[in-house]
Order: sequence, then structure tokens, then C-alpha cells
Amino acid sequence: MSHGIDITRDDSIGVITLTDARRRNPLSTETMTAITAALHEFGLTSEVRVIVIRALGPAFSAGHDLSELVDRTLDDERAVFSACTEMISAVHAVRQPVIAEVAGFAFAAGCQLVATCDLAVAARSAMFSTPGVKIGLFCSTPMVALSRAVGRKRAMKMLLTGDAIDATTAADWGLVNDVVDDDALGSTVMDLAQKVAASSAMTVAIGKKAFYQQIDESEADAYALMQETMATNALTCDAQEGMSAFLGKRDPVWTDS
Amino acid sequence: MSHGIDITRDDSIGVITLTDARRRNPLSTETMTAITAALHEFGLTSEVRVIVIRALGPAFSAGHDLSELVDRTLDDERAVFSACTEMISAVHAVRQPVIAEVAGFAFAAGCQLVATCDLAVAARSAMFSTPGVKIGLFCSTPMVALSRAVGRKRAMKMLLTGDAIDATTAADWGLVNDVVDDDALGSTVMDLAQKVAASSAMTVAIGKKAFYQQIDESEADAYALMQETMATNALTCDAQEGMSAFLGKRDPVWTDS
Amino acid sequence: MSHGIDITRDDSIGVITLTDARRRNPLSTETMTAITAALHEFGLTSEVRVIVIRALGPAFSAGHDLSELVDRTLDDERAVFSACTEMISAVHAVRQPVIAEVAGFAFAAGCQLVATCDLAVAARSAMFSTPGVKIGLFCSTPMVALSRAVGRKRAMKMLLTGDAIDATTAADWGLVNDVVDDDALGSTVMDLAQKVAASSAMTVAIGKKAFYQQIDESEADAYALMQETMATNALTCDAQEGMSAFLGKRDPVWTDS
Repeated sequence: MSHGIDITRDDSIGVITLTDARRRNPLSTETMTAITAALHEFGLTSEVRVIVIRALGPAFSAGHDLSELVDRTLDDERAVFSACTEMISAVHAVRQPVIAEVAGFAFAAGCQLVATCDLAVAARSAMFSTPGVKIGLFCSTPMVALSRAVGRKRAMKMLLTGDAIDATTAADWGLVNDVVDDDALGSTVMDLAQKVAASSAMTVAIGKKAFYQQIDESEADAYALMQETMATNALTCDAQEGMSAFLGKRDPVWTDS
Repeated sequence: MSHGIDITRDDSIGVITLTDARRRNPLSTETMTAITAALHEFGLTSEVRVIVIRALGPAFSAGHDLSELVDRTLDDERAVFSACTEMISAVHAVRQPVIAEVAGFAFAAGCQLVATCDLAVAARSAMFSTPGVKIGLFCSTPMVALSRAVGRKRAMKMLLTGDAIDATTAADWGLVNDVVDDDALGSTVMDLAQKVAASSAMTVAIGKKAFYQQIDESEADAYALMQETMATNALTCDAQEGMSAFLGKRDPVWTDS
Repeated sequence: MSHGIDITRDDSIGVITLTDARRRNPLSTETMTAITAALHEFGLTSEVRVIVIRALGPAFSAGHDLSELVDRTLDDERAVFSACTEMISAVHAVRQPVIAEVAGFAFAAGCQLVATCDLAVAARSAMFSTPGVKIGLFCSTPMVALSRAVGRKRAMKMLLTGDAIDATTAADWGLVNDVVDDDALGSTVMDLAQKVAASSAMTVAIGKKAFYQQIDESEADAYALMQETMATNALTCDAQEGMSAFLGKRDPVWTDS
């Protein structure tokens, strides 16, 4: 345990746990840098097929560590938000899908991290907000992920009022995939992770990378990219095995399974 | 009937029916090319004002014909996905609105086709999925249409798990417009088609083209394009007639009606 | 009162009221130009922290004044849609958040104005539609705001059929934030406005500007912009005061409060 996170492995599932429960898991520069490093490390570990980000204590994360933002130079401030963007980029860049397991509240950069993960499951008691406006620091970087997840008007209301939404609303708006009873959160996330882990890791990695390649492109450009991605994907061993197994009504055997 | 489709006309409604019910309407290269050709043909037929794509049997479409993707060269694979993109492009390019009438399951490229149509109505028993990940071939081209229809987290979950969603969920997420009882599907689609067909075909064509011109642009660029589109639309005979009729409290008579 | 609008101040809330209730508040060129001017004027008034757009009578707005579009030259038509785009741009450009207070129906450019406002609250009896297709003039400029608010299929159905949706559906689709009983509309909007007005006006202005700067960018470009926005925001007096107050468990005092 160091820098506010704990890194573990549960078979093929890599787990990053925020451990500073007492301080409500602040995303300090040190913690964000540690998460980024952990993601890159998992990216190099072929046994890891899915990554879960979870947290100890009553909060997922309260967001940035404000003490790092008071009485600082512009370069100090830039360093904090640069570390944040690197963490966010790493979530999308790492080849394994990343699942947020959200119990308690996810505020500001904590909400941004949930919005950024490929998948997210929330406990019924979870709450989400971007309350920076109330303390003079608009949640402008969380806004990037939030507005792309929930749309304009809903993002604007969260950003301009700082009001929190509950887990059911977050699911209804597409910020999280599912809401479950608090005591079922861990097992639900593990079931989801294992379902994803059962597919070919090569195929999943191709697909995840493709998703972020195409999402910001025009439709025509996206198809130009994806056509080639699918054609080359189809030639991989795992696709040939998977299709042959399906046509032959048998279970596939992946190259890395 | 040829190449797995049947092309008919019901008054001003052009209908493309997938007819290979026994094989669950695979989108083989031949079938996709035939759909593309049928769309272009309808585009040249002034009597046709709306196009419906439907299917025989218990499935809308199971997606690509896997036998076309096994033991092939890269150029063979490219030919399949190129034919698919041409079909998708034709749906958006043809001047008439295209409505998907979805009974049964729409999987992979079948789901992509539904997501691509301008409008879609689903029977209550319809199911939607992008299950390629389970057979080693990630649904990267369906992803383009799916992620633009249902958003990031929901698309990611469908893509990474391969799990199907039901018709009600599809409507809730904006993948289809409406869900109706199975035995009301055909009549609901015809009612919708006839409502659209009652408007000026010229106006509808201007509007459909404009929709896809602006959707991927920045808001400022979109307005620059649409301002001019509306100004020139306003000068057409049908707009002058439509507005005059409205102001005079009478029914309009379209140039092509 | 002039040009179909009335401009008032309720403490820190600037209010633009459409006053041509008898004609259902048409957005004539004169009215749109007056709204644009009122927005710019409020933008220069430091006491105004939030702007509300509301309307007298049973309708919010029926859209453009059709009499301005019949028997005109292309330059005349262009002038109308140019004035519309200037109004829409002013809603996003003005530094204060703009809230639409919607009672009755918001049609065509009226629907566009609601879709464009940063926030919107609707009375339960409100209705929204883009019915231009029925009179030969497709709602191509309203489409820009509508399709970005409710997504492709839903926008397409409204545009191609001209059918209206009710307030509950509008909230479900993200076109408005909230639906309230008709007699609670005014007080709900004022409560929302005052909540937003309680934050630092400088911070709110930074955040609103940032929102529209990032929304059309790729995610990477959006983060590059927002990182710097947050770093410089963090150095403002109000952010330093707000964070210090939060850490010190006291209420903040904004520079302009």
C-alpha cells in the first residue's frame, strides 16, 4: 500500500483500490500518478484481462486534494490537472477494459473517473456530483467526461448547481451501467469482470482501442477506420478459431486462455 | 426474389424484405450489395416516398455470414466490410427516410442496420446485441452506429459482454423509436411511413440530407450550413405553398403529390 | 415593452419575457434581434448573474413569423435565419447561464431556443415539436440544437413526423431538465436561478464559456483546453477564497457578492 492505493490481483482481474478512506480517497497528484502507473503496469501483464477500480470506506472519491490547489503557482496548478489528464488517458489507453465499482459518493474528479471508465457499476447508495462551482473552482475537466456521458442539459445542471444525483438517476442518464444493492456490489462487479475476461483478450484489446479511435470521428471517417480494423481482426487466430467454433457448435479455445 | 431480399412497393412505400428466414437473414456480401442497389433504385423512383426494411421469420438479421469470413485473405475480408459500409452509407444517402421494422433479434451487423436507419420500430419480442466479442471478432463496425445511438457506457457494455438488450431497453436508450405488440408491428410501421409520406417529398429529402450534413459538425459549422439550407428551402414551391396554405388555413398541395 | 419582448430585473436575475401572447410569441426578425440585444446588454451588467427567458400567454413560442418567409427574396430569407443564429449564438456566448421557463408549446424555432438554453424547466402542460415538415419548410436550423439534445432517432422522428412530445418525454430525453406543475413553474425557475446566482459569478462565467469551448472538440483536445482552464481558474481570487473557506469550514465571500 502506498500513495493512497493498493494494487492486487484476483486471478485474471487486476484491482486498484483507493485506500485513504478516512480522507475520502482524495485524488492527490501522488495518488493519480500511482493509478496511472498501476494501469500501465497492468497493461504489460498478460494474465490481467480486466481492471477494476474501487475504494475503501464510505466514499469512492471526493475528488482532487484541495490542499494541493491553495496558495500555489500556476505551474503547481498545471501539474495537478496534467496528472489528472494522464490518469484519464491511461484508463482509455490501457488495453484491458476498466470497470468502476462505486460505493458512496463520487465527486468532482471522482465523478470524472467513473465517467471515464469503460464500464461502471454503482451501489444503490452511491451519489455523483461536480460541486466545484460552490467553491469557486468550476469542474471544467470533469465536465469533459461528464458532458460526453450524460449530454448537455444534464451536465450543465450538475455543473451549475453542484447538486448530486443518485445512482438510479446516474444509470438512467448513462453515467453508470447498473445499480445494485450495496451488499451485492462487489460480486456484481466480479461477475461482470469475469464475463468480459472469458472472451479473447486479443479481441477485447482490439475492440477497446477501436472504440476510442472512432468515437470522436465523423461517421464516414469512423467507418473507414473500423472497416480495416474488422478486416484485420477477422484474420487473427482468435477470430478464426471463434468463428470456426461457432459454426462447428463447439467452445472456442483462445490463444491466451 | 434474389440474393436473400425481396423488393416490393406498397403505394408510395418501398419495401425491402430479408427473405432468408431459415438462415436468420444473414447479411452476406451478396445480400448487402442487393440492399444497396435496392436503396439506390428506390432513390431514383419518384413515386417512392418512404422505404421500409423488414424481414421474414423469427429474426430480423443475425449479422454477417460467418462462412464468408473464415479461411479468407485480407482482401476477401475487406470486401465484406466494404460492402457493409456501402449499404450503411446508402441508408443515409438515399433521399427517402428509411424505417427499420424489427421483429425477432437484430444481432451484430443486423443491430448496426437498425441503428443506422432513420427511424426504427420494434416488436416487443425484439432483441438487440453486438456479440462478436464472444467469437473473437469484435463488432467494430456495428460499434460506429451503436455508440452514436446509445452513448458510450451502454455501447461498451453491449460490445464487451455481447449481452442482448430487449426492445423496451432499446427504446429507452434511443436505439429504436417505439415498441409495439408483435402483431401490431406491421401496421404501426405502415402508419408511420404514411405519415411521413404525406409531407412534401422534396422537403423531406432536403431535411434528411441536411440532418446527416450537420450531425458530425461543430455547432457553429452546423448552423452555417443549416441557415443556408433553410433559406433556400423556404424559396421552394412546396415551402411557399405550405406556408401560404397554413396562413390561409387550408390544406397544402405539394408539387409531387 | 417593444419588439415583442419585455426586459426586467428581479434582483440578480435578468428576465426576458416574450409578450406577444395573442400571436403566440412569434420569433420575428425584430424579436430575435431584440432578444440578442437584451442578452448582450445583460452580459455587460455585472449585477445580473442568471438570465431567464419566459413568455406570456398559453404558448412559449410558435417559432418563426411565417409572414416574413412568404414571397421574399433569397436575401430576405437569409436575413431571418441569420438573425436566428445570432440569437442562438448569443445564448451560448453571454457569460450568465440562461434558463428557459417553458409553459405551453415550444414549436420550431421556439423548440430550438429551449434546446439551446443552458438549462430548461417545463410546466407539465408544455409541448415541444419541430413541425416545419408539414408546411414544406423542414426545421433544419432547429435540428442542430434538437439533435444534439435528444439524439439521432428521436430528433429524426420529431423532424420527419412533426409530432409533438409532452414535457415528461422532453425531460426523459434530456431536452429539458425538469417538469413541474404549471402553477409551480415560476417559483421553480426562480429557485434554480437563485441557486446558480449564489455561486461566484466569475467562476460560473469561466465554466459556461469552458462548456461550449470543449463540447465539440475531440476528447484529447477538450482535455488540453480544460486543463489550462482549471489551472488558471484555480488561481482566481474566488477559487482561492472558495477552497480556503471549504477547508476552514466557513462560508466563502465572493469578490462580486
